[in-house]
Amino acid sequence: MLKVGIVGATGYTGAELLRILSNHNGVQVVLITSRAEQGKPVAELYPNLRQHCDLVFEAPTAEKISLLDVVFFATPHGVAQSMMTDIAKHDVVVIDLSADFRIRDQAVWEQWYQQPHGAPALIKEAVYGLPEFNRKDIRTADIIACPGCYPTSVQLGLKPLLEQGAIELDNIIVNAASGVTGAGRSAKVANLFTEVHDSFKAYGSTGHRHLPEIKQGLSDMAGEYVDLTFVPHLLPMARGIHATIYVRLTRQIDVQKVYSEAYADEPFVDVLPAGSHPETRSVKGTNTCRLAVNRAPEGNTLVVMSVIDNLCKGAAGQAIQCMNIRFGLPENEGLEAAALMP
Amino acid sequence: MLKVGIVGATGYTGAELLRILSNHNGVQVVLITSRAEQGKPVAELYPNLRQHCDLVFEAPTAEKISLLDVVFFATPHGVAQSMMTDIAKHDVVVIDLSADFRIRDQAVWEQWYQQPHGAPALIKEAVYGLPEFNRKDIRTADIIACPGCYPTSVQLGLKPLLEQGAIELDNIIVNAASGVTGAGRSAKVANLFTEVHDSFKAYGSTGHRHLPEIKQGLSDMAGEYVDLTFVPHLLPMARGIHATIYVRLTRQIDVQKVYSEAYADEPFVDVLPAGSHPETRSVKGTNTCRLAVNRAPEGNTLVVMSVIDNLCKGAAGQAIQCMNIRFGLPENEGLEAAALMP
Amino acid sequence: MLKVGIVGATGYTGAELLRILSNHNGVQVVLITSRAEQGKPVAELYPNLRQHCDLVFEAPTAEKISLLDVVFFATPHGVAQSMMTDIAKHDVVVIDLSADFRIRDQAVWEQWYQQPHGAPALIKEAVYGLPEFNRKDIRTADIIACPGCYPTSVQLGLKPLLEQGAIELDNIIVNAASGVTGAGRSAKVANLFTEVHDSFKAYGSTGHRHLPEIKQGLSDMAGEYVDLTFVPHLLPMARGIHATIYVRLTRQIDVQKVYSEAYADEPFVDVLPAGSHPETRSVKGTNTCRLAVNRAPEGNTLVVMSVIDNLCKGAAGQAIQCMNIRFGLPENEGLEAAALMP
Amino acid sequence: MLKVGIVGATGYTGAELLRILSNHNGVQVVLITSRAEQGKPVAELYPNLRQHCDLVFEAPTAEKISLLDVVFFATPHGVAQSMMTDIAKHDVVVIDLSADFRIRDQAVWEQWYQQPHGAPALIKEAVYGLPEFNRKDIRTADIIACPGCYPTSVQLGLKPLLEQGAIELDNIIVNAASGVTGAGRSAKVANLFTEVHDSFKAYGSTGHRHLPEIKQGLSDMAGEYVDLTFVPHLLPMARGIHATIYVRLTRQIDVQKVYSEAYADEPFVDVLPAGSHPETRSVKGTNTCRLAVNRAPEGNTLVVMSVIDNLCKGAAGQAIQCMNIRFGLPENEGLEAAALMP
Repeated sequence: MLKVGIVGATGYTGAELLRILSNHNGVQVVLITSRAEQGKPVAELYPNLRQHCDLVFEAPTAEKISLLDVVFFATPHGVAQSMMTDIAKHDVVVIDLSADFRIRDQAVWEQWYQQPHGAPALIKEAVYGLPEFNRKDIRTADIIACPGCYPTSVQLGLKPLLEQGAIELDNIIVNAASGVTGAGRSAKVANLFTEVHDSFKAYGSTGHRHLPEIKQGLSDMAGEYVDLTFVPHLLPMARGIHATIYVRLTRQIDVQKVYSEAYADEPFVDVLPAGSHPETRSVKGTNTCRLAVNRAPEGNTLVVMSVIDNLCKGAAGQAIQCMNIRFGLPENEGLEAAALMP
Repeated sequence: MLKVGIVGATGYTGAELLRILSNHNGVQVVLITSRAEQGKPVAELYPNLRQHCDLVFEAPTAEKISLLDVVFFATPHGVAQSMMTDIAKHDVVVIDLSADFRIRDQAVWEQWYQQPHGAPALIKEAVYGLPEFNRKDIRTADIIACPGCYPTSVQLGLKPLLEQGAIELDNIIVNAASGVTGAGRSAKVANLFTEVHDSFKAYGSTGHRHLPEIKQGLSDMAGEYVDLTFVPHLLPMARGIHATIYVRLTRQIDVQKVYSEAYADEPFVDVLPAGSHPETRSVKGTNTCRLAVNRAPEGNTLVVMSVIDNLCKGAAGQAIQCMNIRFGLPENEGLEAAALMP
Repeated sequence: MLKVGIVGATGYTGAELLRILSNHNGVQVVLITSRAEQGKPVAELYPNLRQHCDLVFEAPTAEKISLLDVVFFATPHGVAQSMMTDIAKHDVVVIDLSADFRIRDQAVWEQWYQQPHGAPALIKEAVYGLPEFNRKDIRTADIIACPGCYPTSVQLGLKPLLEQGAIELDNIIVNAASGVTGAGRSAKVANLFTEVHDSFKAYGSTGHRHLPEIKQGLSDMAGEYVDLTFVPHLLPMARGIHATIYVRLTRQIDVQKVYSEAYADEPFVDVLPAGSHPETRSVKGTNTCRLAVNRAPEGNTLVVMSVIDNLCKGAAGQAIQCMNIRFGLPENEGLEAAALMP
Repeated sequence: MLKVGIVGATGYTGAELLRILSNHNGVQVVLITSRAEQGKPVAELYPNLRQHCDLVFEAPTAEKISLLDVVFFATPHGVAQSMMTDIAKHDVVVIDLSADFRIRDQAVWEQWYQQPHGAPALIKEAVYGLPEFNRKDIRTADIIACPGCYPTSVQLGLKPLLEQGAIELDNIIVNAASGVTGAGRSAKVANLFTEVHDSFKAYGSTGHRHLPEIKQGLSDMAGEYVDLTFVPHLLPMARGIHATIYVRLTRQIDVQKVYSEAYADEPFVDVLPAGSHPETRSVKGTNTCRLAVNRAPEGNTLVVMSVIDNLCKGAAGQAIQCMNIRFGLPENEGLEAAALMP
């Protein structure tokens, strides 16, 4: 049994890690941390975890973390960086769900996050935790930087086309929408029920922090620079990301075949039949990405639709998938349940 | 591995059975039936079951059912009755999620359902499938009549007080509210998103079919006739029942202690600390009933709050719990996952 | 044209006042105040008011208020009290939407609000602003204490029965549910979309501040002391209160006739036909209370269902109705629009 | 007072017409028709109209219609066509909210609606009812073909850029999302609360009937053929359309100025400040279109966001705006109320 800890377990991704790990046969969670809620049982914040998790929040220390096999950071950006140099001295695998080690170019990171990077020497040690692209490197990584939620949905949506070299690389539109859990659990007027319910809007159309991560990922897949326009939207629902991606073919290919073959062996990517439209609810609470690709009525435009649960495949589930890969466990351990419908 | 079939698997309780059983280690689902959808894969109706269930709907026949170890009826009332006499000749355990065998008094059933009972000789064979009250009888039953969703929440809410003989039996108010899945999957204007969303109303205040079932159950627990007023309401959400029950104490008892002890050994009843208010979301997708009991500010009125997932502990989950009991499997097999929050 | 001001116009009741008054032919809003948002146009917080209201938040002062004909307090409790002694020196009608002057018994107020009353000498000057009970006194009042949202729904629901003296006064259950706007616009984790959406729960079952106000109002109507149990619940929707009230008849009356006659001349109370169940959405954005009264299947229990929009008839609409009455304007001026459905 | 009738008043656009007209000072609604609900008061279907509209549904006949000044068709496609030849003999202005007379090219109409056009001779008589583009022609029209909901949001969003000739005409992406009222009031499983709630999906990505209407409208504005990709999505909310439109500039312009000037005199188009993101709730129940235009972080891509209420500016409100224009009434009569927020 792996000894597991979670730093920053009061937020939604931390709670989602606990929910999934409570049904995982290869681990024992022994540490959950929160500076603000020290001494409080996690089940007081998350009554769904009553009878599933008896842990009490503790203050995080490098010493406690050093006794673990694996530690998840479910923290705002900056926290993992600030502790990583200390932790790296110990034999603990770090799986970071924050943005701290996703961007390889330190200057780009610092530009978008408006602060100096806290552990620049370790950036190159981190492996980007998208198993469908990086599975081999994840097997031996000591720092795994889990992708953001939007970037996961977009990269899985475009990977087959980029690897085929079949689309224009400077004419990609990503119109994405997320449930409100994507905004986290902090008390802000903008995220009140009364502000979000029964409405819909875009945000961040002049620049969103996931943009450089998406560009980096797509460029890695294409082997050359990829540009795109990315506009996120806020949905009046709790969980789920839907990316609608518009690309132009540069040559004719059998799109359905390309996607089916690209993901034939992937346990968590499900390519729907041609003409389908995936629903976010079909993946709620699961680590699955469902994809469909349709051709617009005229011309060479393809419409790729990619849905994930932002807290699961977009965060905690993917992190656990990476852990399973890293420690040689069955890749779907703990991640097998079907979504609730309805 | 038990061979399992589901009659009427296109509805929400049928799909919920499939969802749960897809993660159950003791069974193999080999038959799902639907007259209307014969030949169609279930995953076309329920994309969450893609990769989890490859079955195709078939027409139901007594012959096919006779080859099973256990069959679930997830059908409207009347269907199980019409097939039961044939099935009873075979060695198949029947777990009926419909109302057909819940009421022991044939005349009462016929009055509320406005049709002659289709298998009156078998009514007395049926065991009421509320494990917390009837576990022993369920172990040997051949027909298990699973409780309705509202009745489950109310009976679990009042059982400790009734067994203590500590409340007035003619002054009970049950104010209950249900998510829309309680209305099933049939195409009716009243259940359109546009009719239910962002609104709330009572219904059935002049008489609801769950009333005689609740009275029968509470009377069994009290050992004498219990009367009550029951008003259901429709919530703008998909899953969940919340029963708010008002009773008057006839003598002073330590209510918290009574409840805690009554359910100390029950795997699926969770008594919250005094002063709590259970949330329906804390049990979504689970077989758990969460209870809290508070005293109104003055006088002898107690407020019991009981939440369940109507499709799970109120239907499919409880049915599987009964199956586990009946076949000597661990009672929580397949039913261990924590609820999603948020 | 009356010169109108609103103190505390950043909250939802303040914004609702502005929305309604923007279509009112007898007033001009000339002052909106907020200490926190001074200098900001209200349309930045409430884009629905663009093109309808050009005002900018100012700091509140007694001097500015003294120039008005009428001032609305849409503030947390305590604020109106703290300014009232100064304001009372001027010829300004005060319509207070907060709890400051609702309770006539100073000690009761101080017990429930846990602070000394800030203007005890003025409590007896205040008229309780429920037009259906107090219209005559409202016509000459200088301080109008508008009822709370729950109290409005309950008092209108029970007034006909109390005036008939036809029910048991110590056996009343009020099971009420409110949309989330009832919790106001402050940034709290408990009111985040992600905490409220798709769930339902009770709260305050051990005591809620609206309880003494409801008792006072019902006792006034009955002419003797009325007791009740009151449990509020939180609905996953924005606006609307639904009160389900359980009472026992002490003698047989024609309930439908009693209600129809009691409200025959009331412009904002609509008694539905027997057997109906009012929906909260049917009153959204309006000043209407819709009522239905049904008899439970057996015995002498009546079920009264009363719906209002908590921000409108439960707050801003009723305040404007009071203003119309006080200044001799048509009672429904500005309050005539039908609800959106769906 | 204009004598007004509504054919097909049981659906949501019909009810929206009634809601708005109940507060309109220039008309009297004298006829509402429905074959299915003859003899039933409209307030039974729409309790929000109690006390606002006493009409009872009647069967539609050309004779009854001939006595009106103006008739609205709020019917499925095909109905207005079938009655129009008869009606055209009389002095009645027809305002058709269906798709019957929107498309000028009969063959295109027949291809997308898969049936022969029922009144081809009258197609050229119809004026497309988008006041911001066609106000002058609407003043004298006898048949006004009101735009579809998606087409309204897209055309208003792109008109300033098309008239400037400043964008690539073969590289337009329209990613739009609608509330569920867009699907009407018919009883279909796909539109049940339990199928739509808490989820999001695209639909019609391989071809939607609003596509040819949008192309025709944009081409009219540009003066040359415009192509686009259009993908609609279904939102878990009742009302509102949000169109996110991606275009490429062909030359540098002051976009904010272009939009502000283009709509400076339009009562129902509100251009938000640069950097804004309009919310659908800010226009709920109103005839307003709110627009914002932002520049993507790099390159020449503009993101235009356009929100309307699909039932109001996208249907009934725009129809009434057209009526006001046609009969010389103030253009905003009946259409002045601000949206509810929250």
